[in-house]
Amino acid sequence: MKIAVCPGSFDPVTNGHVDIFERASSMYDRLIIAVFRNPGKNPLFNMEDRVRLLKQATQHIPNVEVDSFSGLLTDFVLQKDSRIIVRGLRALSDFEYEFQRALLIKCVRPEIETVFMMTSSEYSFVSSSGIKELAQFGGDISKLVPPMLYDEITQRCRELAARKTL
Amino acid sequence: MKIAVCPGSFDPVTNGHVDIFERASSMYDRLIIAVFRNPGKNPLFNMEDRVRLLKQATQHIPNVEVDSFSGLLTDFVLQKDSRIIVRGLRALSDFEYEFQRALLIKCVRPEIETVFMMTSSEYSFVSSSGIKELAQFGGDISKLVPPMLYDEITQRCRELAARKTL
Amino acid sequence: MKIAVCPGSFDPVTNGHVDIFERASSMYDRLIIAVFRNPGKNPLFNMEDRVRLLKQATQHIPNVEVDSFSGLLTDFVLQKDSRIIVRGLRALSDFEYEFQRALLIKCVRPEIETVFMMTSSEYSFVSSSGIKELAQFGGDISKLVPPMLYDEITQRCRELAARKTL
Amino acid sequence: MKIAVCPGSFDPVTNGHVDIFERASSMYDRLIIAVFRNPGKNPLFNMEDRVRLLKQATQHIPNVEVDSFSGLLTDFVLQKDSRIIVRGLRALSDFEYEFQRALLIKCVRPEIETVFMMTSSEYSFVSSSGIKELAQFGGDISKLVPPMLYDEITQRCRELAARKTL
Amino acid sequence: MKIAVCPGSFDPVTNGHVDIFERASSMYDRLIIAVFRNPGKNPLFNMEDRVRLLKQATQHIPNVEVDSFSGLLTDFVLQKDSRIIVRGLRALSDFEYEFQRALLIKCVRPEIETVFMMTSSEYSFVSSSGIKELAQFGGDISKLVPPMLYDEITQRCRELAARKTL
Amino acid sequence: MKIAVCPGSFDPVTNGHVDIFERASSMYDRLIIAVFRNPGKNPLFNMEDRVRLLKQATQHIPNVEVDSFSGLLTDFVLQKDSRIIVRGLRALSDFEYEFQRALLIKCVRPEIETVFMMTSSEYSFVSSSGIKELAQFGGDISKLVPPMLYDEITQRCRELAARKTL
Repeated sequence: MKIAVCPGSFDPVTNGHVDIFERASSMYDRLIIAVFRNPGKNPLFNMEDRVRLLKQATQHIPNVEVDSFSGLLTDFVLQKDSRIIVRGLRALSDFEYEFQRALLIKCVRPEIETVFMMTSSEYSFVSSSGIKELAQFGGDISKLVPPMLYDEITQRCRELAARKTL
Repeated sequence: MKIAVCPGSFDPVTNGHVDIFERASSMYDRLIIAVFRNPGKNPLFNMEDRVRLLKQATQHIPNVEVDSFSGLLTDFVLQKDSRIIVRGLRALSDFEYEFQRALLIKCVRPEIETVFMMTSSEYSFVSSSGIKELAQFGGDISKLVPPMLYDEITQRCRELAARKTL
Repeated sequence: MKIAVCPGSFDPVTNGHVDIFERASSMYDRLIIAVFRNPGKNPLFNMEDRVRLLKQATQHIPNVEVDSFSGLLTDFVLQKDSRIIVRGLRALSDFEYEFQRALLIKCVRPEIETVFMMTSSEYSFVSSSGIKELAQFGGDISKLVPPMLYDEITQRCRELAARKTL
Repeated sequence: MKIAVCPGSFDPVTNGHVDIFERASSMYDRLIIAVFRNPGKNPLFNMEDRVRLLKQATQHIPNVEVDSFSGLLTDFVLQKDSRIIVRGLRALSDFEYEFQRALLIKCVRPEIETVFMMTSSEYSFVSSSGIKELAQFGGDISKLVPPMLYDEITQRCRELAARKTL
Repeated sequence: MKIAVCPGSFDPVTNGHVDIFERASSMYDRLIIAVFRNPGKNPLFNMEDRVRLLKQATQHIPNVEVDSFSGLLTDFVLQKDSRIIVRGLRALSDFEYEFQRALLIKCVRPEIETVFMMTSSEYSFVSSSGIKELAQFGGDISKLVPPMLYDEITQRCRELAARKTL
Repeated sequence: MKIAVCPGSFDPVTNGHVDIFERASSMYDRLIIAVFRNPGKNPLFNMEDRVRLLKQATQHIPNVEVDSFSGLLTDFVLQKDSRIIVRGLRALSDFEYEFQRALLIKCVRPEIETVFMMTSSEYSFVSSSGIKELAQFGGDISKLVPPMLYDEITQRCRELAARKTL
């Protein structure tokens, strides 16, 4: 059984992420979405919320599960009996960073492979940070996030904007 | 009448910016330089100073005006009866970021166009952050900023340097 | 009156080109599409055909005209009373080449400006050469070229393929 | 059963290719190496030789087979009951080209996925054309090609060099 | 006598840095490694530690010395009777940033030259920040840092990780 | 004594090349400009002309000599008692290609180092092929090539243009 892990911070999940999940899940027997618990960063959505939003956004994909991890991605991958990391690339700047990480992972754990997929062209400009910025200033993100999450993401971003301008 | 908006933080204005203003203003009936009020960032020059420096640096260009905005750039553009955003590109890394922003703007407001101009080769390495770093450590920025602003920008950067080393 | 020139070989015109024409024409009073007569290259469509296809593909845009030129682009631009060259960028590799050309043009004719627009994301992967290759091998190019040109472009590409495999 | 196709011209196969074959084959049930029959190009090794060299270079990988195709890659992939194309990336310039091809394939055949793997860092600079150039001028390619193919590739490149300087 | 300066933050030194030091030192009569005292950043190793680690890691290279500086790099270079800055490049993103810095230095001090060397392919993915992240989460950095520094760097990174999760 | 080799096709030499020669020669005891005799390509200027133009363009730089080679660059470098190859970079696309070549050279001849210099910003857009194209169509290349070579280069390009349009 081929199990793949798709890691990220997903703060919050976007239509670009869901596009990658749908397409990656068709290539493997199981796809584990792995939300990274980064002690240094200050996310908009906490870990529990990010996992819940991902579950809602992927409930139509049967062989996907959502999990979270802290520590090394490679340890998480091996512990899940996987040997495959899937990463979505939107653009060149993604590529550079991911290239270096894939080589570093290869050096540390040669048995784990990283594979890359291109985000579909209609989502190539959609990023979690872009969505947060847009929604904070009252922009319409309805084409950029899954419909069932639109209200919650919009409201949270506006609360953040309100806090900042106090 | 074709009105274009040239947005940025301009903290502070450089010769590279002025080069773009001069050239862009010749292509449109009116060019509005729009200084972004970013609540998250901590600029060296406050909004009032940045607007004042820009006005001094562009007083020789008749069809230019300087304004500031907070919120969404697209809202500001439409409110000014413009449909055109002009961005100067210095290098590849600018391009990547701007590419994604232009596609995002196109998705949110299809009636607004973003056009790009290349900064002249003699200013291709001039950035606001590079100037601040150079001047802080006593470097000579006289070829990089408009002559009438040289004293004020240099002095402010050195005050910043003095504060940091306390 | 602001006249812009949009040069290219357009061998043949694609939906990506038409997207740029539609958007650029809204920014200028007149847009001249300028087909380049390159003595060195061996095009699939000759100059007359390329001009005719462009006219058909742009007949819905009122302020567009199609012309051809040999020699220097800058001479053509000045002769048409224009000072503005518009170029569509699809990707990074386009950018690099265009960047160098824009600076060269600036050096030779400082009065001419080159401005760039991003091809819409849904056409970011559409190139004349990609279309020719796809159609030669029997692929379906119906989403990539203007509908009224589909039959002619497809047929010509297949004739080329037939000649090559003889 | 997950079948993946790894297409290329492989003129000739390099250690960088074999690295990708070994790693990709571990991720799928079957990996089909598909040599492209390009009517336009003039290869150093003809199709039969390229297939034979690939078979020798991959005889240690049990689930790999070598095949050739002309026409559209997407047709070949579907005909082999595969939905997955695997491509090795060495560098940024590879990425740009491959990015556009992957989006084009997605547009023409949405059911086919393209995944990318990074060539291991020790082979990141190894290309078929570099090897041919090096060997033609008497350089040592022993670290760059599979050992059992070294003699044949070296000799063929030197014959080519001899023909050119006549 | 040709003296070259190799500046950086070296927080901490990696095998990639040592590779550049070894190769650069063979090209010049003297190579001065110059650790930058950045008042804004919060390094893992303080200046004294970074200098000490560099001295240990380069004790096998006879014509290398380690120094530190604050202020402008160009002032330090001239004060050391050098006219040459050596920079190691690992990847494209390094290149962009370094390109702009080299042009800025050229503008400010035309008598100083910046030369670039490529990090060897086996270290192309090794960065100080990557090492710190890896070691913090318990990853094995033994192939990435000089052997005599392995224990100290590993321990310091784990102390940092412990502090963060408190 | 530090001897460096600066290889290229120099068809013809440009002001960008001369800028690199002047700056590189100040860093080494001797700089050998090495014109590559490429049997596959069809140059505008033959080897003898290219060497002669280079000698004229560099007669003001005392420690420069001009030579030509066929075969492997690494063999030429070693035969000249050099261990250093100097390459000028104008832009990102140069970088990618040169990056791969430098790693290949490192693999084949580890004792030879490749160093890179950035072309000054005022020449960043000047290439031999751009000059040939510009001059062929009657453009003014006087700012792009050494003054004493202007007439000969212009005339040769126009002869080429005349031959092509016959």
